[in-house]
Amino acid sequence: MKQAIGFIDSGVGGLTVVREVLKQLPHEQVYYLGDTARCPYGPRDKEEVAQFTWEMTNFLVDRGIKMLVIACNTATAAALYDIREKLDIPVIGVIQPGSRAALKATRNNKIGVLGTLGTVESMAYPTALKGLNRRVEVDSLACPKFVSVVESGEYKSAIAKKVVAESLLPLKSTKIDTVILGCTHYPLLKPIIENFMGDGVAVINSGEETASEVSALLDYHNLLDATDDEIEHRFFTTGSTQIFKDIAKDWLNMPDMTVEHIKLGK
Amino acid sequence: MKQAIGFIDSGVGGLTVVREVLKQLPHEQVYYLGDTARCPYGPRDKEEVAQFTWEMTNFLVDRGIKMLVIACNTATAAALYDIREKLDIPVIGVIQPGSRAALKATRNNKIGVLGTLGTVESMAYPTALKGLNRRVEVDSLACPKFVSVVESGEYKSAIAKKVVAESLLPLKSTKIDTVILGCTHYPLLKPIIENFMGDGVAVINSGEETASEVSALLDYHNLLDATDDEIEHRFFTTGSTQIFKDIAKDWLNMPDMTVEHIKLGK
Repeated sequence: MKQAIGFIDSGVGGLTVVREVLKQLPHEQVYYLGDTARCPYGPRDKEEVAQFTWEMTNFLVDRGIKMLVIACNTATAAALYDIREKLDIPVIGVIQPGSRAALKATRNNKIGVLGTLGTVESMAYPTALKGLNRRVEVDSLACPKFVSVVESGEYKSAIAKKVVAESLLPLKSTKIDTVILGCTHYPLLKPIIENFMGDGVAVINSGEETASEVSALLDYHNLLDATDDEIEHRFFTTGSTQIFKDIAKDWLNMPDMTVEHIKLGK
Repeated sequence: MKQAIGFIDSGVGGLTVVREVLKQLPHEQVYYLGDTARCPYGPRDKEEVAQFTWEMTNFLVDRGIKMLVIACNTATAAALYDIREKLDIPVIGVIQPGSRAALKATRNNKIGVLGTLGTVESMAYPTALKGLNRRVEVDSLACPKFVSVVESGEYKSAIAKKVVAESLLPLKSTKIDTVILGCTHYPLLKPIIENFMGDGVAVINSGEETASEVSALLDYHNLLDATDDEIEHRFFTTGSTQIFKDIAKDWLNMPDMTVEHIKLGK
């Protein structure tokens, strides 16, 4: 019997990681839970984010996943090490893979990080980056408006362009040559961000690197799926199934997907 | 106290992996053992390669490494799963990372693999590739002359060009768009191989992907070095220290390196 890889996120952003995993591991089955009703997580305090993250985790663990991907930077910063310690399946977040990808891309060791307020205040990226290379310099920038632009489906619009230009202006005067999209919602804005930052700046979506690490860890733990059983991906949201589906079917190229509504917490 | 990452190879080829690890993890310490006296491993039978690989492994484990990288495709094919099962430190090879990198690069799912006779006969690459994606087609080609061209230091010469052109001719008529350098010696021939295969073919050196997986696994197991203690890399060879040093100091850009001569086996 197939066992799924579980993905949790505050909303639809983690689908950017799922897309890369399905590209690299087309025979794997995915369970995805987006806590859209309580999105955004970015402005919430760390204890609350950790509690919500545990609620999502327990929901998917009860359904029998073989690995958990915390596909949300804010949740990774708040709860990764606690969840990894307490579960007996492999658990990874998106901050370390994003950091590794950025360090491979930078040529001058000056890296920018875009994230939610929660992620920026946690200092999780500077800690991860300097844990790998002490010589790196990090400029962090909170972009609190980006998540709602994406969750509302406006991520290709003129509004998105305006919000991106206004938010990223402070980075234009720095010497960074690499920017980490430190929130899984932001890859949907990647074309606009790349366009604004210009040619000399590499824009890093941690999704591809996270997917590689999912593959490496499944492999290392002998958990890769060797069967050709039928795949039944499942998508759960605490919010509107219609808005979730509109974004997800476009992003994952799954026109016939089903989205299930669930409740978490009290 | 720093604990080193151990690397083992039949000769100097594994240094191509070390180079990528030092680039991605500049604070980590490396112990490297090249069994140059018994190189090449490619034409030897599997049992003998497995025995030699265990001898190298035990030599480094006795010196206190925190992780082992089998930086040799032939040795990976012969002994990875046995060694991983029996050691209590993380152990990785180069075949799975190389396969992951190739699957990310290919657009038509037709992949060529260059390797030693031992690696090709083991079917380790087709097994790894199809374990990740059953739709991929694999063409394998044994290139028995490549290792001695590299070990003799002739890897930039006209001889190298001739050997590459003659060996790779059978691949020119296939539709592969990606070639895996399925032997850690081959990256030293990469410019010549790329030139021969032409623009439409991506040439994959598993070193970069292996280094990323070293980083991910050290991280996952909380083994990344957080100290700023002085680093003392150590290099061991069973063969000529001079030939080893000539290749290694050039490839790793370490003009003052020391190479220690050791004995393995009977």
